[in-house]
Amino acid sequence: MPSLRRFVNQLGERENIDQVFLVADKQLRANRNGNLYLQLRLIDKTGSLTGMLWNATDSIFNSIPTGNYLRVAGTTQLYNGQMQMIVTRIEPADARQIDDQDFVMVSSEEIDKLAKRLVELLRGVQNPHLRNLAECFLADEEFMGKFITAPAGIKNHHAYRGGLLAHVVSLMEVCRVVAPRYPELDGDMLLIGAFLHDAGKIDELTYDTEFGYSDEGQLIGHVVMILSTVEDKVAESERMAGERFPPELMLRLKHLIISHHGEYQYGSPKLPMTLEAIALHLLDNLDAKLYSVAQIMKEDVGSESAWTSYNQSLGRKFFKGSGDKA
Amino acid sequence: MPSLRRFVNQLGERENIDQVFLVADKQLRANRNGNLYLQLRLIDKTGSLTGMLWNATDSIFNSIPTGNYLRVAGTTQLYNGQMQMIVTRIEPADARQIDDQDFVMVSSEEIDKLAKRLVELLRGVQNPHLRNLAECFLADEEFMGKFITAPAGIKNHHAYRGGLLAHVVSLMEVCRVVAPRYPELDGDMLLIGAFLHDAGKIDELTYDTEFGYSDEGQLIGHVVMILSTVEDKVAESERMAGERFPPELMLRLKHLIISHHGEYQYGSPKLPMTLEAIALHLLDNLDAKLYSVAQIMKEDVGSESAWTSYNQSLGRKFFKGSGDKA
Amino acid sequence: MPSLRRFVNQLGERENIDQVFLVADKQLRANRNGNLYLQLRLIDKTGSLTGMLWNATDSIFNSIPTGNYLRVAGTTQLYNGQMQMIVTRIEPADARQIDDQDFVMVSSEEIDKLAKRLVELLRGVQNPHLRNLAECFLADEEFMGKFITAPAGIKNHHAYRGGLLAHVVSLMEVCRVVAPRYPELDGDMLLIGAFLHDAGKIDELTYDTEFGYSDEGQLIGHVVMILSTVEDKVAESERMAGERFPPELMLRLKHLIISHHGEYQYGSPKLPMTLEAIALHLLDNLDAKLYSVAQIMKEDVGSESAWTSYNQSLGRKFFKGSGDKA
Amino acid sequence: MPSLRRFVNQLGERENIDQVFLVADKQLRANRNGNLYLQLRLIDKTGSLTGMLWNATDSIFNSIPTGNYLRVAGTTQLYNGQMQMIVTRIEPADARQIDDQDFVMVSSEEIDKLAKRLVELLRGVQNPHLRNLAECFLADEEFMGKFITAPAGIKNHHAYRGGLLAHVVSLMEVCRVVAPRYPELDGDMLLIGAFLHDAGKIDELTYDTEFGYSDEGQLIGHVVMILSTVEDKVAESERMAGERFPPELMLRLKHLIISHHGEYQYGSPKLPMTLEAIALHLLDNLDAKLYSVAQIMKEDVGSESAWTSYNQSLGRKFFKGSGDKA
Amino acid sequence: MPSLRRFVNQLGERENIDQVFLVADKQLRANRNGNLYLQLRLIDKTGSLTGMLWNATDSIFNSIPTGNYLRVAGTTQLYNGQMQMIVTRIEPADARQIDDQDFVMVSSEEIDKLAKRLVELLRGVQNPHLRNLAECFLADEEFMGKFITAPAGIKNHHAYRGGLLAHVVSLMEVCRVVAPRYPELDGDMLLIGAFLHDAGKIDELTYDTEFGYSDEGQLIGHVVMILSTVEDKVAESERMAGERFPPELMLRLKHLIISHHGEYQYGSPKLPMTLEAIALHLLDNLDAKLYSVAQIMKEDVGSESAWTSYNQSLGRKFFKGSGDKA
Amino acid sequence: MPSLRRFVNQLGERENIDQVFLVADKQLRANRNGNLYLQLRLIDKTGSLTGMLWNATDSIFNSIPTGNYLRVAGTTQLYNGQMQMIVTRIEPADARQIDDQDFVMVSSEEIDKLAKRLVELLRGVQNPHLRNLAECFLADEEFMGKFITAPAGIKNHHAYRGGLLAHVVSLMEVCRVVAPRYPELDGDMLLIGAFLHDAGKIDELTYDTEFGYSDEGQLIGHVVMILSTVEDKVAESERMAGERFPPELMLRLKHLIISHHGEYQYGSPKLPMTLEAIALHLLDNLDAKLYSVAQIMKEDVGSESAWTSYNQSLGRKFFKGSGDKA
Repeated sequence: MPSLRRFVNQLGERENIDQVFLVADKQLRANRNGNLYLQLRLIDKTGSLTGMLWNATDSIFNSIPTGNYLRVAGTTQLYNGQMQMIVTRIEPADARQIDDQDFVMVSSEEIDKLAKRLVELLRGVQNPHLRNLAECFLADEEFMGKFITAPAGIKNHHAYRGGLLAHVVSLMEVCRVVAPRYPELDGDMLLIGAFLHDAGKIDELTYDTEFGYSDEGQLIGHVVMILSTVEDKVAESERMAGERFPPELMLRLKHLIISHHGEYQYGSPKLPMTLEAIALHLLDNLDAKLYSVAQIMKEDVGSESAWTSYNQSLGRKFFKGSGDKA
Repeated sequence: MPSLRRFVNQLGERENIDQVFLVADKQLRANRNGNLYLQLRLIDKTGSLTGMLWNATDSIFNSIPTGNYLRVAGTTQLYNGQMQMIVTRIEPADARQIDDQDFVMVSSEEIDKLAKRLVELLRGVQNPHLRNLAECFLADEEFMGKFITAPAGIKNHHAYRGGLLAHVVSLMEVCRVVAPRYPELDGDMLLIGAFLHDAGKIDELTYDTEFGYSDEGQLIGHVVMILSTVEDKVAESERMAGERFPPELMLRLKHLIISHHGEYQYGSPKLPMTLEAIALHLLDNLDAKLYSVAQIMKEDVGSESAWTSYNQSLGRKFFKGSGDKA
Repeated sequence: MPSLRRFVNQLGERENIDQVFLVADKQLRANRNGNLYLQLRLIDKTGSLTGMLWNATDSIFNSIPTGNYLRVAGTTQLYNGQMQMIVTRIEPADARQIDDQDFVMVSSEEIDKLAKRLVELLRGVQNPHLRNLAECFLADEEFMGKFITAPAGIKNHHAYRGGLLAHVVSLMEVCRVVAPRYPELDGDMLLIGAFLHDAGKIDELTYDTEFGYSDEGQLIGHVVMILSTVEDKVAESERMAGERFPPELMLRLKHLIISHHGEYQYGSPKLPMTLEAIALHLLDNLDAKLYSVAQIMKEDVGSESAWTSYNQSLGRKFFKGSGDKA
Repeated sequence: MPSLRRFVNQLGERENIDQVFLVADKQLRANRNGNLYLQLRLIDKTGSLTGMLWNATDSIFNSIPTGNYLRVAGTTQLYNGQMQMIVTRIEPADARQIDDQDFVMVSSEEIDKLAKRLVELLRGVQNPHLRNLAECFLADEEFMGKFITAPAGIKNHHAYRGGLLAHVVSLMEVCRVVAPRYPELDGDMLLIGAFLHDAGKIDELTYDTEFGYSDEGQLIGHVVMILSTVEDKVAESERMAGERFPPELMLRLKHLIISHHGEYQYGSPKLPMTLEAIALHLLDNLDAKLYSVAQIMKEDVGSESAWTSYNQSLGRKFFKGSGDKA
Repeated sequence: MPSLRRFVNQLGERENIDQVFLVADKQLRANRNGNLYLQLRLIDKTGSLTGMLWNATDSIFNSIPTGNYLRVAGTTQLYNGQMQMIVTRIEPADARQIDDQDFVMVSSEEIDKLAKRLVELLRGVQNPHLRNLAECFLADEEFMGKFITAPAGIKNHHAYRGGLLAHVVSLMEVCRVVAPRYPELDGDMLLIGAFLHDAGKIDELTYDTEFGYSDEGQLIGHVVMILSTVEDKVAESERMAGERFPPELMLRLKHLIISHHGEYQYGSPKLPMTLEAIALHLLDNLDAKLYSVAQIMKEDVGSESAWTSYNQSLGRKFFKGSGDKA
Repeated sequence: MPSLRRFVNQLGERENIDQVFLVADKQLRANRNGNLYLQLRLIDKTGSLTGMLWNATDSIFNSIPTGNYLRVAGTTQLYNGQMQMIVTRIEPADARQIDDQDFVMVSSEEIDKLAKRLVELLRGVQNPHLRNLAECFLADEEFMGKFITAPAGIKNHHAYRGGLLAHVVSLMEVCRVVAPRYPELDGDMLLIGAFLHDAGKIDELTYDTEFGYSDEGQLIGHVVMILSTVEDKVAESERMAGERFPPELMLRLKHLIISHHGEYQYGSPKLPMTLEAIALHLLDNLDAKLYSVAQIMKEDVGSESAWTSYNQSLGRKFFKGSGDKA
C-alpha cells in the first residue's frame, strides 16, 4: 500500500498537514511581545522543516521528547525561501500511525546491504597486507558499530545516520571501476584509502541524539584523529599475520588519509603526493559534490523555476532544467 | 629483436651516445666570447633533451632540417637538473637506422585503435539527438583528421601528436564506468561532453611542424572556439534527422564545454551548474593529473631518490617510493 | 507645472503617501501567525521600495496586475536601513493621474536621442571594414530593438530599460575623447569594441516583464553569447562589401569582447592582450563604477550622514561630504 | 640630415656596431675562470642593452666614467632573449660625434613644452582654492625642478628622466577630456589629483646619477611622503589668499592621493571612496598600462612573431599582430 | 558591600530586571504593523544589550537622553543568539541608585594608574633622542588628554573609553620584557613604536558622545594621520634639546608606525622591513587578539557549551572548555 | 688569541683565501665544453659559500670526503649576488689548523647550556600533570638525543645542528615572560606547547650527514607526526603518576601543537581556538622571523648598501641602515 504521507520534500505552500514527524530538536523562545513560542525541527527521510508553535508554555515545552515521533498538525508556508509549518496541534503519535521506513534516510535493510557490500569490496583486495589490515577493522565491533551509524557530515553531504557508510561504499564502488583504467594506480591502496579516508568522523562527530562535533573533532579533526587507530590496527595485523607490514605501505596509506582534502585552504596539512592520493581527493570530491548538488536540486521545493536558489557555500545557482531534453 | 637504442628517459650522466634522434627545434646562438653554438631539441618517443654543438657556423645551422631524423653523437651531462647532450658530431640518418616506432608517442596503429574505440563509444550513446550529433562530427573528415592528430597541450598533459585523442578516449572510458554509479547523471550527455570538451584545441594549437598556439588560440581559447562548430553541427544534425534538436539539450552541452575548467581562476567563464558539468570537470582533472604526474615520475631520471624534483606548476614534489610496498 | 509627486528617492521616514506607482513584482506570503500579507515592489523612475499590505487574501493578490500602474496609499518607514511602505489601500490608477515621464528611467525621447547619437558615433568610424560591420548591426531591426531596450544589468550599474544603450553611448563618448590622446590606440577598433562589448546582454537578460537572466544567459553568459552574432554579421558585411573582412581584424574584435571583464576572477576567459582590450576594460570599468557609485550616493536617503551606508559588493562606504568644498 | 645611428631598438642579431652610447652603469666581475670582465649598461633614447667586455682590468674599469658618452665597438647577440653587445673596443667619445638628441628620452625642448602645458592645465582650474594651491606648487622652484626631472619609476612605466612629468601631463590631458562626460565628477579636483598623485616620487626615487629608491622612499613610500608637503602648501596658499582653504577640500585631495593605488594589495592604505578617487585610480592605471604595454611591444626586438615574449609582471604575452588589419 | 546588580555578562534567559543602565544609543522605528517601537543600547561595564520598548511614541523617544543613566525594567530573552531585553518601563535614575564603578570599563583610578605607568615606561627609555621626543608628547596636554580617553577601536579590541591607553600600556609592558630576549632588537625604538603606533586613533575615532569614525579617520586613517604630528614633535624636541634628531632614527620610527598592520591586505602601505617593525606588528597582534578572544569567551553568555558561538570576523569558534584541566 | 681566520660572513670580493673549511656537499659536473668541474659547499659557523674547482676529475672528486675539514685555497668573487670561491688548491687539513669552535653554529658547551636551561624551564612548570609529562620526555634518552641535535629547518630559521633546541629554548624564555602579562593565559600550557610544538621535526628532518626531509617528514609532516608520541608519553606519565591525565588537558595540548602554523595556507589543519594556541602561534612566528631576518642582515655581505638584497620568500628587502641612529 503506497504511503499516504506527504513527505517533507513534497510539501507545497499553504498545505494543511496532520501526520507523524520525528522531532529532532526543540527550543522555547520569547517573541518580541514577550510571548513564548516553540520552535521544532521536524524530519522524515526526505528532509526537514521548521515547525513553529505560538503561545507555548514551559510545560508544553517539557512534554515534548526530542528524538521521538509526534503527531503534528498545522499549515505550511514559505518563510525566507524555506518551508515552515505553523503548528496548531501536537500530540503523541499512535504507534500504528508510524511507519519506520518513512523516517530513516537509510533503512536498516539498506545499511545491512551497504555493510555487506563494504565487506565484499574489502575482501576483494589482493594485497595481503592491506586485506589483513581491512580484516582487523572489520573485526573491531566498536569501530564498525560507529562506522555504519555515523553521518558523513552535519550539514553538507550525506548528513544522515548511515551517511558515512553510504558515502564510503559509493566512493569505493567508483574507485573499483576507475582504478583499472589507470595501470599506474594501485587499486588496492586506493580502495583502502576510500574505506578509511573519513573514518575519523566516527569520533569527530556526535550523532547519538543530535548531530554535532565532539570537542576533539573541533580541536583536532577527523583527518588527523584516525591516524593512531590506523597505527594500532597495523600493529594488530602484524601480530595476526606474523609478519611485518611494509613501512612504506603504511606511510602511503597515512598520506592518503592526511592529504585527502587536497588543498591547504580546506585544512589539508599536506598536498597529495602520490597517484592514489590525487585520485582519492578528486573522486571523494566527485562523490560528495554529486550527492550534495543532486540533494540541493531535490530539496529546492515550492518553485517552478528551472533554477535552484543561490547556494552560498558553492557560490552559484544550479540548473534543474525544464525537462525539455528529449 | 629488442631495440639497442638508449631512449631519452633511460639516459644517465656521462654516457657516450651515437644514434638517431628526431630534431624538433634548432637555434644558432653566440656565447659570451662571441663564438656561435647550435642548440637542438632532440626527441624520441620517451621524451626530449637539449643538444649543444659548440663552434657552430651558419652553414652547419642551415644544413640541419628540423622535423627530420639525424644521427647525433656526443656525451650526456646534467645541467641545472636537466639532462643535456654535448654534441660532437651530427649527420644525416641512414634510413635503415631509423625505426619509426622509436619516435612516436602514439603509433599509427595505436591511433587507429583509439579512433576505432572513439567511434564505438560514441555509437553506444542512447539519446538519438546526441548520437546524431556525434555522427555529424565523425563524418566531418577535416575535423576528425585534426582531432586524431592534435596534441592535448604543448607542455602539460598529453603533449604529443595524438595526445588529444588519447586523453579524450581515456576520459570517455572513465565517464562510461562512472556514470552508471550515479543515477542522476545523464551518461550520454557526459560522454558527448567528454568527446567535445577539448575539441577546440584542434585549432587553438598548431602542430604541423612544431607545437604552439595559433593567434586565435591565444586570443580566444579552445573553451570558446569550439562553440560555433557545435552550433553548426547541431544545425546539420537537425537537417539530417529532420527534427528539432532540443534547445535545452544544446544549452546543456555548450555549458558542459564552457565550464569544464571548473573555476574562474583557470579561465572558466562559468562555474559548472549541472551535475554533468561538475562530473566532467572533476574527471577531466583526474585524467589529466594522473597522466601528468605519472609522466613526471617516469621522466625524473638520473636520480636514485624516492622523490621527484620539485614541480613548479603543481607546487610540490611527488613520491616515487623505494618500491618496498609488497 | 512641476510634479507634485513624492519620488522614491525623496521619501523620508513616516511620510503619508497616496499616489501612483508602477508595480514590478508581487508576492503573497503567510506571516508567523499564519496571516497572509502581500509584498509589492513599487517603482518610479528614481528607484524602488517595498510595499507591505497586511491581511491580504488570494483574491486581492490575484486582482493586482504586475507591470501596471496602481494608486497606492500608506506610510513610509525604515526597515533594516531600507525604506518601506506599509500599504493601507491599493486601487487601480486613474489614467489622468499617470504621468509616464515619472516612471521611466530613460524617456523614449532620451532613448531616441541616445540611439541617434549611437548611429552618429558609429558612422564616424573611418575603417571601412568596421564601419560596414556597424551598418550591418544597425540594419538589423531585431538586434537594434533589443539593444535600445535592454538594461545593462539586473541590479548593478544601469539596471533599467534602456540602460544598456545609455551605458554603451556613454562609454563610446569617453572612448572617442580618450583614443586621440594615445596614438598607438586604434580608435575605431576601440569604438566598435565599446559598441559590442556588452551586446550579448540583449539575450543574456530578460526584460519583457521583469528583469532576470535567461537560461542561456546563466549557463553561457553575454561575454561568449555575442560571438556567433559577430561572426554572422562579419560574413554579412563581406557579402555586402564584396570583399574579405581582414581575419586579424575580426580576431582583435572578438578578443576585445571576450576579454573585457579584464581578470579571470570576473569570469573573463582571457586577459586583455591588445592595447585596445586594455583600454576598453578600464574605461568600461570607469563608466560602470562612476554610474554605480553616483547612484549609491543618490539613493542613500533618510540620513544626514556625510557617508553612505556600507556597500557590500564594493567593500566600503562612500563619502558624500558635507558640501563644504567651496 | 637623418641620423646614421643604429638605435638600440633597431638592433638585430650579429650586427657590427661602432658608435657612441651613454654609459649608465658599469661593473667589474670575475668569470668562472677567474678572469675579469666588464659589464656595462649602454643606453640611447630608445632603450638600453648590456655590453660585455672580456679580459678587463681594474684600470680599464676605473677609466670609464658612468653617466658619460663613450664610443663603443662590438658585435650584437641575443642572450636569453635579450640583446647584448660583445664589446671589443671602448674609448672616449669625440664631442663632434655626439648628438644629444639621440640620448634623451625626452629632450629639454620637450620637457619645456610639457612643463608649459602643465602650467596651462593648472591655470585652467576654476576652483580658486585649488588654483591658488597649484600656484604655490608652481612657485616652488625646488619642487618644480625635481618634478620636471624625476622619472615615474625605475623599471615600469615612464622610467626615464622627465618621465614623471610626461606621465602626469598625459594623465591630466585625459582627465580634462573625461571629466566633462560625467557631471558628478569635480573636474578641478580630478586635475589637481592627477597633478599631485605621484609627486611623492620626487623624493621617493633617486635620479641624480642612476635610478633607485631613497631610504625614505622604501620605508615610507611616495603615497604617504607627499602629504606633509600638501599640508604645507595649503597653509601657504591660505596665507597668500588670506582665506581659509576649505577643510573638506583638503581632505578630499589627500584622500585622492592616498588611495590612488586603488587596492590594498598594491599598498593602498585606503580604497577610493569618492568619485574623483575612483576615476583617478582607473585613469592613472590606463595611462600607465598603455605606456608600458606599448613600450613592451616596441622593445620586443629580434623576432618576427606576432607576439611579444611572456611578461612576468603582467602575466601574459601581448599581441603585436601581423599588420593585416586593413 | 557587593553589588546587587545583575551585570550584562551575567544575564541569563527570561530574567526579570529592574536596575540602572547607561543608554548609549536610541532609535525610534515602526514595526510591520506601523506601530512605533524604541530600540535602546543598554550598557554597563561588562558589556551591552539591546532593549526593545514596544508601543513607543515620539514624546517617549524625545524624553530619553542618550549618554545618561536610566532605570530600566523588563525581561531578558535570547534573539538570534543575542541577549535582548523587552523593556516594560523606563524612567530617570535616582542618583543614589547609580554606582559609577558599575559603568566604566576602566575607572578613572585605573586610567590614572595606566597613565602613570605610561610615563614611567617612557622615562625608562635610554636613547636621549627618543626620550626627549617622548617628553614632548607627554607635555602636550591636548594630545595626552585624547590619548588617555580614546578607545582603541569601535567594535574590535579595547573598544571602550580608555581602551587605547590600556592597549598601549599592555603592549609596552610586553615589549619591555620581550626586547631583552633579542639582542638585535632596539628596545627603546620598540617601546616608542608601541607608544605611538595607534596614536593616530585619537583623531581617527570620535568618542565624545558615541564611538565612530571621523571623516579624516575614514578617508586617511590613523596609520598615516599621526605622521605629521611625529614630524612636529621631532622638530620640537630638536628645539628643546638644541641638537639634531638623527634622520635615520625618525625614518625608522615613521616606518614602525606606517608598517604596523603588517600586511598589504590590512591596509599597511609598507611591509615591516626592520626588526623592530616585525616585532611590533606581531606583538601588537598578540595583545589585540588575546584581549579580543578573552572578551569573546567572557561575553558568550547564556550557554553551557564548551564552545563560543561562531565568530564571523575571526572565522572560527573558540574553546572555553569544561574546566576539567586540573 | 683572536682567530686569524676570514669568516664566511667577512669575505669581500676578490680576496685570496687559504684556510680550512668544512665541506658540506660536493658535486662533479661537466661544463658546456664537456670539461668536468667540482662544485663544493664550504661552511664555517658564520655561513656557507660555493667553491668551484675547474678541470676536475673523477679521482679528485672521489678523494674529497664530505662532512670533513679541508684546506682550501682560491679567490672570492661575486656571482649573481652570491659570494663564490674559485678554488685553485684543495688538500687535507692539518689537525693543528682546525679550531672546532670556528665551525659549529652552536658549540657543545652551548648545547649543554641550552639543554640545562630547557630542563630548568620545564621543572618550573606548576601543573603536576604537565610537569610529569615533561619528565617523561626528559627521561627518554633517544628523544632527547635527537631533540638537542636536530635543526629547526633545512633552509629557513635555525637551520643548523642544535637549531631546534636553540629555537625552542628561546621561544620558551619569551613565553615565560609574556604569559604573566595576560592572566587569562595558562603559562604552564603555553610553556609545554613551546617545548613540543616542533618536536616532530626530530623525525621529519634527517640530519645525520646532511640536512633533508625523511619520507615520513614529507608525506605526513612534523605537525602531525609528534601526536602519537604525545599520546604515548601521556599514557606513560599516567602509569608513573598513578592517576589519570585530564583528557581536556591532553586535548588542549594536542590542539596547541596541531594548530601552531596558525593558518590553513601554512599547512595548519586547524586554526588556533584557545588563547594559548593563539599566543604560541604568534610568539613562534616572532622568534623564527627575528632569527631569520637578523641572519639575512648578517649574511648580506660584500655590499655597502643600507639594504639587504630582495628576499624572495619574505617578499621584501630589509633595512640594515647606515648606523646613524645615535
